[in-house]
Amino acid sequence: MPSSIAPEDAALALLEGHFQAMPPVAALQMRIEDFDGRCLALAAPLAAHVNDKGCAFGGSLASLMTLAAWGLVTLRLARAGLAADVFVADSQVRFHAPLFADLRARASLADETEWDGFLLRLRERGRAGLHVDADVTLPDGALATSGRLRYVAVAKG
Amino acid sequence: MPSSIAPEDAALALLEGHFQAMPPVAALQMRIEDFDGRCLALAAPLAAHVNDKGCAFGGSLASLMTLAAWGLVTLRLARAGLAADVFVADSQVRFHAPLFADLRARASLADETEWDGFLLRLRERGRAGLHVDADVTLPDGALATSGRLRYVAVAKG
Repeated sequence: MPSSIAPEDAALALLEGHFQAMPPVAALQMRIEDFDGRCLALAAPLAAHVNDKGCAFGGSLASLMTLAAWGLVTLRLARAGLAADVFVADSQVRFHAPLFADLRARASLADETEWDGFLLRLRERGRAGLHVDADVTLPDGALATSGRLRYVAVAKG
Repeated sequence: MPSSIAPEDAALALLEGHFQAMPPVAALQMRIEDFDGRCLALAAPLAAHVNDKGCAFGGSLASLMTLAAWGLVTLRLARAGLAADVFVADSQVRFHAPLFADLRARASLADETEWDGFLLRLRERGRAGLHVDADVTLPDGALATSGRLRYVAVAKG
């Protein structure tokens, strides 16, 4: 049966559903902004994330980056036809400058060449890890926050 | 005028007020659980933080640790009679095991002997940094998540 929804859009809709089903994520008021196959961008309004200094709360910035990175791995696994649970294993985040604007987090693989080996290990051993880079930029393009996160995927079933 | 509220309680009430005035923090449904002068503990219900796997969302764990660490530095500065803005500068977090219970984050200085030098630099130069260790434990006492965060305080006025 033909469908008017591209497979990529369906995967994004599924991811959006996953996100909104998680209470802490729904509280972030975030939405998927863009996915070009390699980079996933999420956005959230500053109003939901202001701290005592009127800029974005560090925990919110780290959460949005964590979600972007998790969503990227989840989307790419779905595209590869693999069902797996994806867990964050560790994260290193640097806060460079306060952000007084809406939040936009981007995530992409730290090293695109890691992907094939990651898929192979996941298929053969049922478990594999890889690194994702994420950032949030200021309106002028400079870095507000940047980080590297390691994720572990565990094959389902 | 005598007051029935101990100074320590007033500082905690002020911190609680700070927390609840931040929309992203109010969304976490957290509360101050304990402060003994050296360790600040915050708690939040799992129901507000479950992810797609039924355990606590990594971003929530990192956020709660960030808040506990920020709250600790803020409380201790208030006790020292210093007014300063406190910013998270960087964080390293390791996720050891999934948490299927309510969240309880603790924060204490990474090195208690750093404190006097930190106060001195803040008074003399108007700016100083220090490290805070934070963790979230499983009900059996093992680590769910642990991390080290660096904070920078900037004197006000």
